[in-house]
Amino acid sequence: MSNVRVHNFAISLDGFGTGDGRTADAPFGHAGERLHEWMFATHSWQGDGGSLGADNAFAERYVPGIGAEIMGAGKFGHPGWQDDPDFRGAWGDDPPFHTPVFVLTHKPRPSIDMGGGTVYHFRDASPADVLEQARAAAGGQDVRIGGGATVIRQFVTAGLVDHMHIVQVPILLGRGVRLWDDLEALEEKFSIEAVSTPSGVTHLTFTAKQRRPV
Amino acid sequence: MSNVRVHNFAISLDGFGTGDGRTADAPFGHAGERLHEWMFATHSWQGDGGSLGADNAFAERYVPGIGAEIMGAGKFGHPGWQDDPDFRGAWGDDPPFHTPVFVLTHKPRPSIDMGGGTVYHFRDASPADVLEQARAAAGGQDVRIGGGATVIRQFVTAGLVDHMHIVQVPILLGRGVRLWDDLEALEEKFSIEAVSTPSGVTHLTFTAKQRRPV
Repeated sequence: MSNVRVHNFAISLDGFGTGDGRTADAPFGHAGERLHEWMFATHSWQGDGGSLGADNAFAERYVPGIGAEIMGAGKFGHPGWQDDPDFRGAWGDDPPFHTPVFVLTHKPRPSIDMGGGTVYHFRDASPADVLEQARAAAGGQDVRIGGGATVIRQFVTAGLVDHMHIVQVPILLGRGVRLWDDLEALEEKFSIEAVSTPSGVTHLTFTAKQRRPV
Repeated sequence: MSNVRVHNFAISLDGFGTGDGRTADAPFGHAGERLHEWMFATHSWQGDGGSLGADNAFAERYVPGIGAEIMGAGKFGHPGWQDDPDFRGAWGDDPPFHTPVFVLTHKPRPSIDMGGGTVYHFRDASPADVLEQARAAAGGQDVRIGGGATVIRQFVTAGLVDHMHIVQVPILLGRGVRLWDDLEALEEKFSIEAVSTPSGVTHLTFTAKQRRPV
């Protein structure tokens, strides 16, 4: 069975997955990198010298078994990137995905092969439709929903997510894009576990009670 | 020094301290009692047979050293109680406060002595002003801000809270009254700790970095 998974998606205590005022230089707006410091400290991110505790155990689950990612336009680049025909994404020349990546955008463009396994495909499609394409591209492996908050919410609402790992960081952003809007009674569909770690974050894991056969 | 404290205030993962549709029969609206089951299971609440672990250790901090409580009109009773001149509160004939309780309402009425130490006073006043009165009534002990979410937010925003204990319950309410609105950068004023416990809840404690002399 091929599963649909969310990993390492960080939010503030007040539920924002990204801050306000996003630009090319500030991809998370006024949040800066504060939502991700827990991850930068792990072996999974920095290699030797990084922590090997619970934060790292969660962080490492990001890669294995993933055959494709789906991300929103806001994760691919700064607001307005669609107007730059030469834009190749905010993730550099060696993006960390190493799989096909399906970018949801109302202005699709030709695919871009970045090398290293990362090929960006641009789709104006419903969650179910782009998931079908991503599954085909994943070659039997799982599909990761990469974010941002709005895209994760859309896939969860559509009942398409099997597993979700959310990391709650002890800051209050006050403004930005909320993850939790309109997800009433999610606990009826998912088993929820919470574990706080010495770094100060709390890992929330959601495991679907009914796994969908594929 | 007399401190201002919040204890055992429970919210959903999406930050609601009470649900939607509050009535006399459903004081927490569609949330029911789900935000408080963690507490009902403790020794502190049920006595013999109750749990004596971390949830109970937090829950027990509710009483000692408190000399007065301040609560909002919504905690005192159902919407519209102000129109019933005989209403004596939603907390029964033997309320669990055992101190003076200052009820914030735009329609003050004469004080009510419930016995057992609980005396309800009704005030239409700013947070700072009612706190001054509560402190005087507390006889040198601490003042508890009893909630709801809106009242806690007002006191935190006014810089009047020294310590806050919030319990995050793994459910999503989707609607109701949010605790976290407009509290950007609270982490600059408070040290924040998170600890999840086997019952599934996560205790968030906020300790003011600068304690105010009284």
